[in-house]
Amino acid sequence: MSGSVIPESHPRFESLRTREMMVAGFEAGVVAREGLMAHGRGEAFDYMMGEETMAAAEAAAEAAAAALLLAERPVLSVNGNVAALCPGDVVGLAAVSGAKIEVNLFYDDDGRRRRAVADILRGSGAANVLGAEEDLAILSGLDSARRRVSAQGILAADVVMVPLEDGDRAEALRKAGKGVIAVDLNPLSRTARAADITIVDNVTRALPLVARYCREMKGRDRGSLMAVAGGFDNGANLRECISYMVRWLEGGSDA
Amino acid sequence: MSGSVIPESHPRFESLRTREMMVAGFEAGVVAREGLMAHGRGEAFDYMMGEETMAAAEAAAEAAAAALLLAERPVLSVNGNVAALCPGDVVGLAAVSGAKIEVNLFYDDDGRRRRAVADILRGSGAANVLGAEEDLAILSGLDSARRRVSAQGILAADVVMVPLEDGDRAEALRKAGKGVIAVDLNPLSRTARAADITIVDNVTRALPLVARYCREMKGRDRGSLMAVAGGFDNGANLRECISYMVRWLEGGSDA
Repeated sequence: MSGSVIPESHPRFESLRTREMMVAGFEAGVVAREGLMAHGRGEAFDYMMGEETMAAAEAAAEAAAAALLLAERPVLSVNGNVAALCPGDVVGLAAVSGAKIEVNLFYDDDGRRRRAVADILRGSGAANVLGAEEDLAILSGLDSARRRVSAQGILAADVVMVPLEDGDRAEALRKAGKGVIAVDLNPLSRTARAADITIVDNVTRALPLVARYCREMKGRDRGSLMAVAGGFDNGANLRECISYMVRWLEGGSDA
Repeated sequence: MSGSVIPESHPRFESLRTREMMVAGFEAGVVAREGLMAHGRGEAFDYMMGEETMAAAEAAAEAAAAALLLAERPVLSVNGNVAALCPGDVVGLAAVSGAKIEVNLFYDDDGRRRRAVADILRGSGAANVLGAEEDLAILSGLDSARRRVSAQGILAADVVMVPLEDGDRAEALRKAGKGVIAVDLNPLSRTARAADITIVDNVTRALPLVARYCREMKGRDRGSLMAVAGGFDNGANLRECISYMVRWLEGGSDA
């Protein structure tokens, strides 16, 4: 879709531009049709936090950074929407946190989308992308294509960061004994509740924020990092996010 | 996408089924890529009202029915998402309210989608669909494809019902002196604020509800209908909807 259909005078020009990125990702075979709908859901929740990072999300991002730095085998799980929106931020966070990058998709009939996502990540500077070409192992407790994971990546991981996840997989990863860091704009979702640390924020803001905290905390000893990660209460954080959105909705009604 | 990718055990099977209808509409050339994202946004708002018709939306639907019955030249404006989700409900409401049906699309490069939408409506029993094949007039105050309207339909209408609308057009229709009835799941949207009557509800619930009120009120005199339509306060109704969603969010946070 050419830019000409969106007049620059449109009051939501910025979010319309992001939609065009998603459409481009769709055309490139990276984003699924279902991914376009998922983006719309995220947009609605983002709207209800004023499209800004909430203080609660800052705290969650800091805890996430500490958890990634403490992990022995951290993995960033990447789907089509994440690759379409912020592949460079994935690569940057992997570099500063020492995490591996693995492609993991809900919709992937024949491996084509998987390879397209890996190509985008490599194009943004990723030296090694798991989950794209190698034979995959099976993570139990899942019905969807997401059960197929890399033996060197998610299967062996102690901490998995799953931006834009579905509830089933967050729960399956927890059951498999892994620490789960989610990025989810819906603070009421099963994913948000199932994860150890949920960053309720737009993935395009959350990934650079976690990377910044990783850089800041990189020299710290394990005890200090454990205090940050261990002091985080996900349930309380989600309630803070909901309160923020409630205040935003109530304020908006008087605007 | 075959049904096989969505396990029946999934706790949100019903909304996943609706997503499949949208994907089918996309494959049929009726729904635009941007329409898939718009559906996602609606889904998020619907989620925050428990996916049920709020009492405030019932009142708005009743006022909308009265306004349609009072109108001399009412028109139902139909886009790709509405045609994909509930073409039969459009035809049913048109029949009971005496409204004409007109196709009006934001994304329509060459008229193909316009004709596909009209075909679906005719397949659901619409005898006459405006805006599909005839030469179109121009509604001033709009940049997008939506400015192109039928001279016998929206251009001449006194009341236009616009389910799933963008703010620009709701405002342009108001400026053109038309009564505007919107169906919008976001009570804070420009459309919701610009319309005379906004039904904050899922279009698949709202259209049958308005049709039911039309049937109930059909025999009433104009004075009685004017009392219903004139007694409606859109701003107050939107605030009620927001309060409901706030209570839902707050309740959800304890669930």
